[in-house]
This record gives sequence, structure tokens and C-alpha cells, in this order.
Amino acid sequence: MSQQWLTFLSDYGFEDAFLGVCKGVIARTAPEVRVLDVLHLVVPQDVEQGAAVLASALPYLPVPAVHLAMVDPFRATPTRGIAVRTADGAVFVSPDNGLTSLAWDVAGGAVEARLLDNRELWNPSPARTFRGRDVFSPVAARLAAGLPFEQVGTEVDVAELERLVERLPTVESDHVHGEVAQVDHFGNLTLNLQRTHLEQAGIALGDDVELRCSGKTLVVPFLETYGEVGRGRVVVCEDSFRTVTIAVNQGNAGQRLRAGRGEPLVISKMVAPAKTGPVVLPPEPNVVAGR
Amino acid sequence: MSQQWLTFLSDYGFEDAFLGVCKGVIARTAPEVRVLDVLHLVVPQDVEQGAAVLASALPYLPVPAVHLAMVDPFRATPTRGIAVRTADGAVFVSPDNGLTSLAWDVAGGAVEARLLDNRELWNPSPARTFRGRDVFSPVAARLAAGLPFEQVGTEVDVAELERLVERLPTVESDHVHGEVAQVDHFGNLTLNLQRTHLEQAGIALGDDVELRCSGKTLVVPFLETYGEVGRGRVVVCEDSFRTVTIAVNQGNAGQRLRAGRGEPLVISKMVAPAKTGPVVLPPEPNVVAGR
Amino acid sequence: MSQQWLTFLSDYGFEDAFLGVCKGVIARTAPEVRVLDVLHLVVPQDVEQGAAVLASALPYLPVPAVHLAMVDPFRATPTRGIAVRTADGAVFVSPDNGLTSLAWDVAGGAVEARLLDNRELWNPSPARTFRGRDVFSPVAARLAAGLPFEQVGTEVDVAELERLVERLPTVESDHVHGEVAQVDHFGNLTLNLQRTHLEQAGIALGDDVELRCSGKTLVVPFLETYGEVGRGRVVVCEDSFRTVTIAVNQGNAGQRLRAGRGEPLVISKMVAPAKTGPVVLPPEPNVVAGR
Repeated sequence: MSQQWLTFLSDYGFEDAFLGVCKGVIARTAPEVRVLDVLHLVVPQDVEQGAAVLASALPYLPVPAVHLAMVDPFRATPTRGIAVRTADGAVFVSPDNGLTSLAWDVAGGAVEARLLDNRELWNPSPARTFRGRDVFSPVAARLAAGLPFEQVGTEVDVAELERLVERLPTVESDHVHGEVAQVDHFGNLTLNLQRTHLEQAGIALGDDVELRCSGKTLVVPFLETYGEVGRGRVVVCEDSFRTVTIAVNQGNAGQRLRAGRGEPLVISKMVAPAKTGPVVLPPEPNVVAGR
Repeated sequence: MSQQWLTFLSDYGFEDAFLGVCKGVIARTAPEVRVLDVLHLVVPQDVEQGAAVLASALPYLPVPAVHLAMVDPFRATPTRGIAVRTADGAVFVSPDNGLTSLAWDVAGGAVEARLLDNRELWNPSPARTFRGRDVFSPVAARLAAGLPFEQVGTEVDVAELERLVERLPTVESDHVHGEVAQVDHFGNLTLNLQRTHLEQAGIALGDDVELRCSGKTLVVPFLETYGEVGRGRVVVCEDSFRTVTIAVNQGNAGQRLRAGRGEPLVISKMVAPAKTGPVVLPPEPNVVAGR
Repeated sequence: MSQQWLTFLSDYGFEDAFLGVCKGVIARTAPEVRVLDVLHLVVPQDVEQGAAVLASALPYLPVPAVHLAMVDPFRATPTRGIAVRTADGAVFVSPDNGLTSLAWDVAGGAVEARLLDNRELWNPSPARTFRGRDVFSPVAARLAAGLPFEQVGTEVDVAELERLVERLPTVESDHVHGEVAQVDHFGNLTLNLQRTHLEQAGIALGDDVELRCSGKTLVVPFLETYGEVGRGRVVVCEDSFRTVTIAVNQGNAGQRLRAGRGEPLVISKMVAPAKTGPVVLPPEPNVVAGR
């Protein structure tokens, strides 16, 4: 059996049949294609979140694959649909709003782009308000089934495509300004930081740091994993994607710190060892842990 | 590889293993069958919602396919199980409570019906309270795998099957009484109306209309898509299934109007041009848009 | 087409890409394997719930199959990964925390166990905090694709594996102490009791019983199914897995009794026929029923 994978990320959710209908279109168009659901609970219209998730998931998704991504906020003129091929052979199908742009570089960089303007590949009588069903799904399915890339439509210069600007941290001599990039199912807060940013501010693994976030100031350790602190303690650590994360061992950091996606924060080097040790809040009953 | 599709719609949700167990039974019974999930968050016991969703999704689902639908409210005597074959060759397996009746006509009309009374096709020792697992799943799986239709059980006259009465709008000379038929993931309110109903009341595309709903009266435009009004504005438009819908551009109409499924509403022709223009509420921060 | 099934149960939820990423790893590792989702909304870190669900679902899952289960609370030292083979040929891959232990006996009993310590089968550079992705998923995928069981790692005595102690009821001469083991999507409360426990306390099908639970005392019938009482009435009955359950016909017992998982309760034989008949609360508008 040939393995023709189509991965699918969207903000469609599960409360209605949008997702089922798109999968129906894929099945009608190219029954041999296999769909792999990456995430369908992207915050509605949050292109940045979708882009970040897709980029971090990509190294674990099947190869070769067509990656369909649908987060499509309204703009004055409807966002054009694009297919992008990368140096590593990955193909992305999405609106031209930057949604897949972070993933291109993970897959070797964009080398060719086409507009989805070959209407013969669309559903008949496409609805303007459900292009996921009528344009993107059938085109992605055909690509996954082997349609030559150049047949999806007019070539467009990859330099003209919309790209997201990553929200980078600001590194000072003894502190880093960052923000919460993601909150996961367990309440862990993934930041827009790598360990190197902390190191540039003089913070080394094993140090205590001062963490300021949503009106709170905590002194917490910077360790490799959340498992190295006691139950219920806050820790700055690395997550499984090598990104700096705030976690609570067996607890929910998002609830503890009342911080959501986009929350700004500052992580500072301690000038002197903390005298009173980490601030310890009582452990929570509703505990969470490893994956 | 043969493509034997079984689509599945239910009110089982995802909080327990009901759905997983039914898919397990399908996999044990007919491993070659492929399951396509249409929707599993039908409001518990809401046969009308399930029926409407299945009918509107059907044109996008694979052909040929067996369509398994499980929303099975208690009745004084347990609802009998049925399989229905339509003129277009679609097969539906569900309780005889009207759940699939709206979809039959979309698929050419019911031409043959059988009771699911051939117990050799059931799981051994079927539980009375989980017929989805013990009766409907194994029978649907066998049909999808090629079981001749007549073997599922005793023939029954299609005229005797339960059918849903669609809740039709009332059209007057200058207004239409309708109701909210569905609320989607983005908060758009799908009505039980087509554009023709509005036209019969003298309302044309481009007109402003008076919308009365959940104690509010708004003057809003009737346009082709929600994208034609400014951000945060309410609009009456057509959705991707060609049904009249109330939407808020980049907003949530259900929350804005505090209206849910079943909410009655009146759309009236404006006798004179609105003097004050559309009622404009401030845009919402948590915006939503295209699919 | 060969049918190589991998069933998957976890507490990953659907709000982030953890599940999608694990499925990506499975697809990369063994594209011919088919994944069947059992449940991904296990209460975070609730090994007992996961174990009970897997054991009760197992008789309905495909054979042969590899069963991957990931609920992995933090412990002082990370829980070792294990693969367990049973007399019936089922293979389980999970942390050694008892998560699959109740299912082993359903599948004939554990006959061989191996630690997942063959690092050649892992993802390169495994993250300590996402072993589901980097250790368990690739090993389970390879087993499902035909890897000989003994290659996953070092043999370990099955007697040394962690096992859950089932929380058994206490049966007295005229009453039974039990607890709520599960709450399903419809609000039905599954107890840690079989009918035989009630019979040992002198309670027979058809009797009225006194039910004490979360500060309430109700007199309710013990019947075969919830369908045998009127709408909105509380009943003690058997569920589709032959376990004693508290249900409300077309209602939500969990909400009615304000009882969740772990809630203790006492079911007592009535010494005299109830004079006032069952306590009847008004029916609820948001009704629920059969599956």
C-alpha cells in the first residue's frame, strides 16, 4: 500500500461537521490518501499559534507529506490560497497569511510557490465562506495523491509570500524579556525563548532566577526538567521541543500564574543567592505530570 | 486497496471510550473498512440536530459509503434499528427515529428498508443500553464490507419509517418567522431559511432588514457574505451550505445575540431606509472568521 | 492489506499537538500500522481511570493489536517503560505504573515483560519530558509492525511489575459500601460493584434500595436498565459492561447527585417496602439517553 500522507491542522474544532466535511472531500477526491490530524483546536483565527505549532510538530510528521493548514481570518480582500514546496520535499497548502511560513524553514526553506487558482481542482460552485472545504481540501488531496506541483496554479515568487515575524525575546546583560508563546493541555507555559537566550543574560542551568509575570514575582530554579523540583513547585526548564518553559511539577502553571498566551514576562539573574529559597505555594489537588 | 467507507455521526462525545469501543467493534468485524468521523458532538439526544448536520454534510461524504448515525433517546419501547438504502446507493444505519431521514432525500430518496433483526450479525450477549456497540456498529461494518443489504433483517415499508418534519419558516408579505437551526464552532447562527424565503417576503440581497431575536431588534444588511460588512458588524448572509445565516464579521453572533439553537426570530423588510444606519456594537476582542 | 492495529489511550487531550505528534512518529516509524483511538481524555495523571477504561474496552478492541497507553505521572525516579505480552497474544506498551495491569487479565494474563531499554528503537535525542513521543510511540509502532517482542529490551519478571489494586466494595449483611468508578459522557455513574455484590447483601433485581451518596439519601429501584423507570427518575441498574450503575432516565445522574469519580456511597436493602415510593425529583430539561 502506498503511503500518501496528508496532515491537517485547523481552527475548526469538533463541535460541528466542518472537519468531517473536509475529510469527506479528501476521501471523495483521493480515497487512497491518509489523513493525520495534527491539531484542530488552534485558537480561532490565531495564525501565529497555528504557525508555531505546525513548525514545532513538523520534525515528527511523516515524510513525504502534504501539510494542509486552515486558519483563515477575514481580510479586506480574501487571502489568496497557496501551495509551497520546500527544499526537503514537503508541500504546504494554506492561505497566504504566514500560517505555514515558520514550518518552511524547518523543512529546508521554501523553493517554489503556486497560487491555488486552477479552478478545475476546486469543488464545483465553491462557497466564498468555506474555502477549506471547496478549495484547500480538494487541492491538498490531489497533491497528496500525486498531482504534479506545478498544476495547482500560477507560480508566485516565494519572496512575495506573507511571512510571520517571530516575536523574539529581548536579551539584556542580566535579564530577558519574553512572552508566553503556548499553553499546553497540562498548563505548561512555553516561552519564546531558547536556553541560549538565558545564557546570554548570564543565567546558567542550576541557577535560581527571578521570574516576573502577570503581576507576580517568584524566585524559582532553572533546571533541565520540571521533575527536579518538588511537587507543586514552579520551575523554569526546557520542554520536549528544547524551548524554555515554566512548569509546576504535577501542577498547572497557567492557572498558578494566571498567565495565558502572549503574557509578557521577565526572567532575571539573581544578584545574590536567594536567602529564603524558592517561593513555595501549597501543592494543588488537581495535579498533572509527564507525557 | 478497496475503499469501503463507513461514516460515523453520534452524540457520544470524547470523554469516555464509547466511540473508541464502537470503532473497535468495527475494526474487529471488518478490518478493511475505513471510518470517517462526521461529528460526535451532536447535542445529547438531539435527533433533529443530528439529522440536519448529516443531511447537509452528505454531499461532501465519500461515495459509496455506509452512514452510521447514533443518537438514540429512550422511548417507551426501544426504537427499532433500521438500515435504509437510497436511490443513489447510499446506505444508512441508525435507530428508526428520523435521524437519517433528512439525508435520504439528499441521496435520491429511500428505496428499501430493513430492520436490524438478524441477530447473527450482532455482538454476542448484546447490552440493552449500548446498542451502538452491540447492534449498530457490527451491522454497519458488515454492510460496509459488502454484506448484501437484504441480509441485515426483515424488510419494512419505507413509508412506515419515522421521518422528521422539518421546522419550516412562515413567510408573510413583508417578514419571515424562522428559528436558529444550528450554531457553529465560530458562533454563526444558521437559520431554517433559504434566500428564497426572504425574497418571497420582498427582501432582496443588498437590502437592510429588521432582525428581531432574543429580545433585541437590530437593523442589519442582507448580503452575500459576512466579509462584506466591517469588523464586528452583524449581517444576515448565506453560509457555505446556501442557508441564511446570521454572522458577525470576525465575531461570534451566538454570543452577541445570546441566541442558541431553536431561538425564534423575525426578519422584516424595512419600509423605509434606515435613518440611523445599522446598529453597531463595539467590535469584540476575541474575533473569528473564515473557514 | 495486512491489519496491524495499534490502539491508543492517553491523557493528552486535544488542545495541543501532543497526540498529533505521537501519531506522526507512529506514521514515520511504521506507516502500515493503523491507529485506533480508545480515549484521550483520561483525567490528567489518573492512572486508575485509564486502567479501568482500558480493561473494560479491551474485549471490543481489534485482535491482534498492540495497545499503547500513556498516563505518566511524575515519580521521584521516572517510571520505567514496559512492554507486556499476554496469554491471548495482546501486547501492551506503557509506563510501569499499573496503567495496563487490569487489562492483562482480561487478555489471559501477563506472560512476558520487557523493559523499553533498547535505545536503538527510540527517537534520537529523546526528551525526558515527552517519552510518549520519543520512546513509547516508536517502540509501540515497531511492535505493531512486527518487531519480535524480545527485541524491545531486557526481560523483567512479570511478578515485579506494578499492579493496581482494584478498589473493591465492602459487602455487609444488608448493605454494600462502594464508590463511583467512572462518570460517562451522559452523566451515568458506574460503581465498583457487580450485581453479585448487591445479591450478597440480600438485594435482588426489582427491589427498592436505599442509596446514600454525597449527603443525600434516596429510595430508588434496582432494575435491569434505566429505561424501566419514568423520565427523570433515578435508578440503580446494570450498564452495558455489566457493572452496577446509577442513572437517571433521560437525565444526568452525576449532576443530579453531585457525585464524581471516587465518591463513596452505600446501597442498603430496604427493611420494609418504601411507604412513600421512590423520591422523585422534577425531570431535567437537558435530557440524555441511550447509546
